[in-house]
Amino acid sequence: MEKVLIANRGEIAVRIIRACQELGLNTVAVYSTADRDALHVKLADEAVCIGAASPTKSYLNMTNLLGAAQITGADAIHPGYGFLSENAEFAEQCLKAGLTFIGPRPETMRLLGDKARAREAMKAVGVPVTPGSDKELTSVTEAQAIATEIGYPVMVKAAAGGGGKGMRLIETQAQLQEGFTMAQNEAVKAFGNNEMYLEKFIERPRHIEVQVLGLADGTGIAIGERDCSLQNHHQKVVEEAPSNIDPATREHLLEVSKRAVEELHYLGAGTLEFLYTGPNQVYFMEMNTRIQVEHPISELVSGWDLVKAQLLIAAGKPLPERTATNGYSIECRVNAESAGTITGLHLPGGNGIRVDTALYQGYKVPPNYDSMIAKIISYAPDRETARRKLMVAINETVISGIQTNLDFLNELLQTEQFKQNDFDIDFIERELLPQQA
Amino acid sequence: MEKVLIANRGEIAVRIIRACQELGLNTVAVYSTADRDALHVKLADEAVCIGAASPTKSYLNMTNLLGAAQITGADAIHPGYGFLSENAEFAEQCLKAGLTFIGPRPETMRLLGDKARAREAMKAVGVPVTPGSDKELTSVTEAQAIATEIGYPVMVKAAAGGGGKGMRLIETQAQLQEGFTMAQNEAVKAFGNNEMYLEKFIERPRHIEVQVLGLADGTGIAIGERDCSLQNHHQKVVEEAPSNIDPATREHLLEVSKRAVEELHYLGAGTLEFLYTGPNQVYFMEMNTRIQVEHPISELVSGWDLVKAQLLIAAGKPLPERTATNGYSIECRVNAESAGTITGLHLPGGNGIRVDTALYQGYKVPPNYDSMIAKIISYAPDRETARRKLMVAINETVISGIQTNLDFLNELLQTEQFKQNDFDIDFIERELLPQQA
Repeated sequence: MEKVLIANRGEIAVRIIRACQELGLNTVAVYSTADRDALHVKLADEAVCIGAASPTKSYLNMTNLLGAAQITGADAIHPGYGFLSENAEFAEQCLKAGLTFIGPRPETMRLLGDKARAREAMKAVGVPVTPGSDKELTSVTEAQAIATEIGYPVMVKAAAGGGGKGMRLIETQAQLQEGFTMAQNEAVKAFGNNEMYLEKFIERPRHIEVQVLGLADGTGIAIGERDCSLQNHHQKVVEEAPSNIDPATREHLLEVSKRAVEELHYLGAGTLEFLYTGPNQVYFMEMNTRIQVEHPISELVSGWDLVKAQLLIAAGKPLPERTATNGYSIECRVNAESAGTITGLHLPGGNGIRVDTALYQGYKVPPNYDSMIAKIISYAPDRETARRKLMVAINETVISGIQTNLDFLNELLQTEQFKQNDFDIDFIERELLPQQA
Repeated sequence: MEKVLIANRGEIAVRIIRACQELGLNTVAVYSTADRDALHVKLADEAVCIGAASPTKSYLNMTNLLGAAQITGADAIHPGYGFLSENAEFAEQCLKAGLTFIGPRPETMRLLGDKARAREAMKAVGVPVTPGSDKELTSVTEAQAIATEIGYPVMVKAAAGGGGKGMRLIETQAQLQEGFTMAQNEAVKAFGNNEMYLEKFIERPRHIEVQVLGLADGTGIAIGERDCSLQNHHQKVVEEAPSNIDPATREHLLEVSKRAVEELHYLGAGTLEFLYTGPNQVYFMEMNTRIQVEHPISELVSGWDLVKAQLLIAAGKPLPERTATNGYSIECRVNAESAGTITGLHLPGGNGIRVDTALYQGYKVPPNYDSMIAKIISYAPDRETARRKLMVAINETVISGIQTNLDFLNELLQTEQFKQNDFDIDFIERELLPQQA
C-alpha cells in the first residue's frame, strides 16, 4: 500500500490525509465541483475532480471514484464515514479493481448492513439484543403477533434503514396498522426495500457504543466505550468517553464486543451501538462498519490512533504504538446553520484541546453536504475539567459569516443534566428543543 | 484569589487566560498601545492599556502594572515568562500592594537570579555544578588563578547575566585578559554590575532541564526533564521530552532537583537547567523561577497542567488532578522574521497536535516584541512518530503576510542528526547556520 485515495471530503478527509502523511503514504483527494477550494484538496499530494456537487454525481459515484483511483495509480481507498463507507458493493468493486478497501470485508459489511441479519448474528455470539422480531417482516399481521408477544411500546424499523428513516414508535396496538404502513412506505422510498423489523421500545436509554478493532489474524480488540446519548433528531451533538455506565455492564459490553469481532472475523475499525437503561439492561442496536465521527474521544482516552490503525491493518502491517493513558474526553459537533463564506475564523487551541475541521478563513461552506463543519474536543483528567475546558474553548471560538450552533452547544454544556451526567437519548428534544421535536 | 491580572502578552498571556477561565477565575489583560488588537486583550474579561509600545513603558513598568491591578480590583498577578517574571523587586512590590504574586517568594527569586549565589546554594544541597569560581570575581588576576586550577577552556559569565550577554569563551590563557575585560564591560553596560564568574567550558553538551513544582507545605515535585539542545544564538528552537540521557543520570537529576526545591523552600513552577555530556557528567547552569516557553511538552508527557498548578499553588489550593500518561512530545518555535499583517493563516490540528499561539488572520504582528509567534507541539507514543507528526503539521501550516522560520524548522527536523537524536547545543550554529554564527 503506497498511495491512498480518500473517497470523502471535509474534516474526515483531512484527518485521513494527515494519518497517511505521518505513515509516509501518498494521498489522492477527490472533490466535487462544489469542493474545488476545500482544504482536503489543498492538503493531499494529488486531487481529482470526480463530478458535480450532487453527491450521487461525485462522492457516491463508484465509477468516478474507481476511475480516479486508476488515473492516479492509487492502490487503496479509504471511504471515511457517510457516503460509500458502508456500501458493500463499493468495497467489492474496489477489490475487483485490485484496490485495497480500507474497511471490513464486503461480506461482513453486507451482513452487518442488514439490521435484522446483524441482530441475529450478534444474538448468536452472545451479544444482548432487544426483544423483537427474529426475521424480516413485510405485513402488519406478522408485526401484530410479535408486538403482542413482547408488549408495547414497540419500534418499527426498516431492515435496510439508517438515520431515522423508515422508523416509527408505536405506543399502543391501535397505532400499529397506520404506523407500520407509514414506516414501510418510507422504507420503500428511501431504500427500495419493504422489509421491516420490530423491537421492544426502550424508554429513556443511554446510547452507549463500543469502539473495536479486528485484526487480520482474527484477534478482536475492544478499545473502550463512548456515551453518545446527546442527540437531536438522531444526530449526535455531544459525545464523551468514558461513559458512566456501571462497571459490570461495561466489562460485559467490552467482552461481548471483542467476542463478536472475533466470531465474525471482522477486519478493521468498527462500532457496536447499544441502548443502556441500567445494570444488565443493555441492548444491541447495530454495528457501524467504518470510522465514526466521534472517534477522537476514544483516541484521547485510550492512546490509540484509530485511523492509523485502519491504514496499518489494511496494509497488513503491525498496529501502531500507543501511549498508555486515561482521563476524560468530550467532543461537540459544530454545525453550520447556513451556507456562506467564513469571513472570520478563530479556532481554540492550547492544553487539552483538539480541533478536527476543514475550515479556513475565506472558505465558502457549500450548501450541498452534511452541516458538521468542526469538532471541538477536550481532554482532561476528569469529566468536570473536560467540561469546563470545552466551554472555554467554545466561548473562544469565532466563526463569522455563517450561522452555527455554538451558542446551543454552550447552553447544553451548562445544563444541570449535563453537569450531573444525567440524561438520555431524548433529553435534547424533550427538554431543550421541544418546539422542534 | 478571584481576579488575576496577566502581566504579559502573546501566546503565554492566552495560555494563562485559558487556565484561569477553566478554574473560574476572572482575568485582566494588560496591553501596550502596540497591542490594542492582540488576542489576549480580546479573550480576557477586562483589559487595561498600560502604556506605549516600548516594553519599559508598559510590560516592564511596575507602577503601571500595579496601577492596572488596583483599578480593576485584581488580587493576583501572573507574570508569564520574560518581562518582569524573574524580577524579585516586582514580586516584592506585588506583595506589598496586597497582591498574590504567582511565582516563587521574592527572596528565592533574588537568590536564584544571582548566578554565583545560585550555584553555591545548589552545590550546598548536592546538585552537581560545573567546576569554577566559588564566588564573584571582579579582577583578571582572580580569574587567572581559577582558570589555571580547573583547566582551559573556560567560560566567563556575568553574575547578573542572561541571554548570552556578558558571556565569553576563553580557550587559552593568552585570551583571558582581553576576554575577561570585554565580558566585564558588557556586563556593566547590560546589568550595571561588574561581578563575574568563571566555569569550566563544557564541550558539545546537551541542554537538559528539569521541570519542578514546589508546594506551600515544602514538598518538591520533579515532573520530568526536557532536552532543549537545539538552540540558535542561545535561543531555543526545538525542544523535546523526554530526553535521551542515560536512565541513571536522569534519576539522579530528578532526585537532586526535588531535593533542591525542598531545601530552598521553592514555591511554584521552576526549571533547573543542566549541561550533560554523558553518564554522571552533568552540570547545573541556572534555575529559572517562572513558567517556561517549552512547558507544554512536559504537560503532554506527564499529564500535569503546569499553569493551572501555578495558579492553584498560589491560591493555596490542592494541586489539579492529572492523567497518567507517557509518550513523546516535540515542540518547535515558530518565529516571525518580519513584522506585518497576517493575511492568511492556517494552523494545523487533529490527533496529537497542540498549537499555542496568539495569532489570528488579520492580526498585525508588531515589531516591538519577541519574535516567537506560535508553538507547534506534537505528541505521540514514540519519538519518530512525534517527529513525523510535527513535520506533517509544519508542512500544513500557512502564515502569509510575514516571513517565518517554518522552512528552517522543517529542514531541521529532517536532518540525520535530529532523526538519530544525536546533537548538542552548538549543532545548529556549527552545522546548519554556520554563516550566522
